Amino acid sequence: MTVLDLNADLGEGFGRWRLTDDEALLSVVTSANVACGFHAGDPSTMRRVCELAAARGVRIGAQVSYRDLAGFGRRAMDVPADELADEITYQIGALRVFARAAGTDVAYVKPHGALYNRTVADAGQAAAVVAGVLAAGAPLPVLGLPGSQLHEAAGRAGLPVVAEAFADRAYTSLGTLVPRGTEGAVITDPDAVVARSVRLAREASVTTLTGEDVTVRARSLCLHGDTPGAAALARRVREALESAGVRLEAFA
Amino acid sequence: MTVLDLNADLGEGFGRWRLTDDEALLSVVTSANVACGFHAGDPSTMRRVCELAAARGVRIGAQVSYRDLAGFGRRAMDVPADELADEITYQIGALRVFARAAGTDVAYVKPHGALYNRTVADAGQAAAVVAGVLAAGAPLPVLGLPGSQLHEAAGRAGLPVVAEAFADRAYTSLGTLVPRGTEGAVITDPDAVVARSVRLAREASVTTLTGEDVTVRARSLCLHGDTPGAAALARRVREALESAGVRLEAFA
Amino acid sequence: MTVLDLNADLGEGFGRWRLTDDEALLSVVTSANVACGFHAGDPSTMRRVCELAAARGVRIGAQVSYRDLAGFGRRAMDVPADELADEITYQIGALRVFARAAGTDVAYVKPHGALYNRTVADAGQAAAVVAGVLAAGAPLPVLGLPGSQLHEAAGRAGLPVVAEAFADRAYTSLGTLVPRGTEGAVITDPDAVVARSVRLAREASVTTLTGEDVTVRARSLCLHGDTPGAAALARRVREALESAGVRLEAFA
Amino acid sequence: MTVLDLNADLGEGFGRWRLTDDEALLSVVTSANVACGFHAGDPSTMRRVCELAAARGVRIGAQVSYRDLAGFGRRAMDVPADELADEITYQIGALRVFARAAGTDVAYVKPHGALYNRTVADAGQAAAVVAGVLAAGAPLPVLGLPGSQLHEAAGRAGLPVVAEAFADRAYTSLGTLVPRGTEGAVITDPDAVVARSVRLAREASVTTLTGEDVTVRARSLCLHGDTPGAAALARRVREALESAGVRLEAFA
Repeated sequence: MTVLDLNADLGEGFGRWRLTDDEALLSVVTSANVACGFHAGDPSTMRRVCELAAARGVRIGAQVSYRDLAGFGRRAMDVPADELADEITYQIGALRVFARAAGTDVAYVKPHGALYNRTVADAGQAAAVVAGVLAAGAPLPVLGLPGSQLHEAAGRAGLPVVAEAFADRAYTSLGTLVPRGTEGAVITDPDAVVARSVRLAREASVTTLTGEDVTVRARSLCLHGDTPGAAALARRVREALESAGVRLEAFA
Repeated sequence: MTVLDLNADLGEGFGRWRLTDDEALLSVVTSANVACGFHAGDPSTMRRVCELAAARGVRIGAQVSYRDLAGFGRRAMDVPADELADEITYQIGALRVFARAAGTDVAYVKPHGALYNRTVADAGQAAAVVAGVLAAGAPLPVLGLPGSQLHEAAGRAGLPVVAEAFADRAYTSLGTLVPRGTEGAVITDPDAVVARSVRLAREASVTTLTGEDVTVRARSLCLHGDTPGAAALARRVREALESAGVRLEAFA
Repeated sequence: MTVLDLNADLGEGFGRWRLTDDEALLSVVTSANVACGFHAGDPSTMRRVCELAAARGVRIGAQVSYRDLAGFGRRAMDVPADELADEITYQIGALRVFARAAGTDVAYVKPHGALYNRTVADAGQAAAVVAGVLAAGAPLPVLGLPGSQLHEAAGRAGLPVVAEAFADRAYTSLGTLVPRGTEGAVITDPDAVVARSVRLAREASVTTLTGEDVTVRARSLCLHGDTPGAAALARRVREALESAGVRLEAFA
Repeated sequence: MTVLDLNADLGEGFGRWRLTDDEALLSVVTSANVACGFHAGDPSTMRRVCELAAARGVRIGAQVSYRDLAGFGRRAMDVPADELADEITYQIGALRVFARAAGTDVAYVKPHGALYNRTVADAGQAAAVVAGVLAAGAPLPVLGLPGSQLHEAAGRAGLPVVAEAFADRAYTSLGTLVPRGTEGAVITDPDAVVARSVRLAREASVTTLTGEDVTVRARSLCLHGDTPGAAALARRVREALESAGVRLEAFA
């Protein structure tokens, strides 16, 4: 039987602003990537999301980011490696205190936005993220793209790596993501997203932008929560996966 | 034999900016109030100060503050109690991860600036700070003014309280501090600061602005580190205390 | 014939976050209070709102605030008067460059949130706001509550003052606002808001929380834009005012 | 007779923190690059520096930057062009109101730190900076490296360009700067800096890291103000230039 984790970014508001429907998404996902205050997320939001996640048995991960509220962490930054490592450590520590207060703990790390994209190929920043995780004192799994520099660096450091896939993103024949901005890079048809989710889970396969099939093995599927209708689509994906006999369960 | 702790605010830079001579002060104090990023303090500075403090056996405390980099935490803010509590918890968590990475831990909490002053008399904000400390999951001692609302709230919640005194501040006949801004409120003559330090430690007594003696019992003496000559004066105070037979030791 | 201005807070997003439906509200109001980056508002949002407002002939005002993104400017802060004045000047300058690029100019100033509330009674902060407006180099009208310290200080300084009223807030028999938090302070029934708007415009009168009538004279009516359904209600208010023969026109 | 402008970065504190000795440097330079709040600089500092500069007849320029207080604007950021342009416009507008309040005006623009370095070769970001200057509504000269993409873009847009040189930086045989981090990239010997300043002014020539001479024509010489002894060295450079018959005068 196939086992799959569903993850989504949560707690991405800041002060007066809200972005994600945290309650609705927490009834769908098995892992919550919680913003830690650098691209989004304020202390009260972090506490509330941790409490809700703990109450529902959803795993909590630190969604670490560049320090960039104005850009929502979506702008690559040339942060020196030692500073970047310290910023990662800081974010994990800040989230951990709320996770523990809620009776659970930070169980994994996933970079956000531009840091996620950059650490696919940038070995220096990937190593910095891993150094920051190690300094936080627990061998936390790192959620990311298989084959990424981030996963290479995590593996070398002895951290578990967890591969994720995207049902709403187009893939190349190499099994990598088609860059945003390219025509067709983002799949917006809900039916297509649902069908791709099931096929990814059952067959570890996805049809590329150019029409052929490519193997994509993933232990976790990323659902997006920051668009209108996102929570409803996430629920549809979950139901389709369950109907197809996929067991939804967080990674260890 | 009298036992006294010496505390000072450290790590009060931010990014490119420095304020305190952390290395010099860490060779003087027994307790370091480390800024946690809300009024000052960035992740790399926090890591460095924690490493230096751990190496020298200096106790690490979380110097928690209002979120106000532009005002250095010196402007009172009407933060709702639940938000303030969460902000305190966040800051303790962020510092804790660095303290533990350095092989030690956050050992106490002391509010900074306007939050320190406000929680002397504001029971609501004092309770919020205590709630934030409790949520951080360890019964951390709270360093502050004896008789303050902060100490009242901490005591009711079962947290240890540690009384501190100031050798460079004038006292009223009630044993409270003369407000800054009042003529004579700050004592700038180094010899007077040294003499008052020794008398506070040995006799638990200080001469008030109006000339009489008043009893001031303190387990910790606060030294200021953000003025020119501060580190040198701190060293003189330490040496005078040691010569007077005072044992300098962090509180338990 | 009665003449009334309709004002609303606009551009209150920041980066990835949005709060107000600026386009819809700009088709209703005659004056737009534009956030300047201190409680909300980023440069691109400021530019866009100024362009839209200019295209529709809506007057642009600087919605100045405490520097408090995390608290959306809703937390009173003890900012020293000279710093507060400089912060007001800065915000006006930043908005002015976008207003002028759009072919118009900043035409008035209105404090936001906690600064609005505080300058009702705090003469020192009111004077600081006025000093900041004066330093910006144009005799800009100040929109606010009649009888407020802000209006007193503006009047003494020779700045025009414009009185505003609120159709969705309860009034006391003194003609002042019932504080938020008091039961009944905010009127949520759309029909009541519409009816009170018309009566404020036509009769300069409002029924207080305790049932009597009180005179409230206003040249501008404040509409709120940050709640669901706000734009639709704003449109209803406008239509009802027009049907009642009220001429909607920005103040000079 | 050779005419040269001396420029330095000023007002680079933030809140409680200070970096540059603004008063001392303002008695040396003819042009002040004033931080506008994005990498450093708060409203009160901006006002004070503008007042001091105006009183001494020093020209005021907007030292525009990425929005990065934590990194002091020294970390390259992939800011989208339209957002970057708006951020430049905002900064110019914010400084302009203080310059005008001091009886003068913003007279030129110079990017700071990573934005300066990036716009040497990045045509997209260079064009964004120029678009931001144009939107600010005055044909402000752009101070920068001759041959940079920034100067290319400014020239195409009809903005005056002003070439600057550095007496404390090593040059390549192509007349470009040796990147920081390379051995010998920064010249720290004060006598060498003084001698190179005079030679740059008198002969438009500098000896490269590899020993040959290369032509470097500059209308402005950049002095650094953020290191200990910087103000004293700046004064020595000025006196040496005056002794060598160089007329020190801001560019038109």
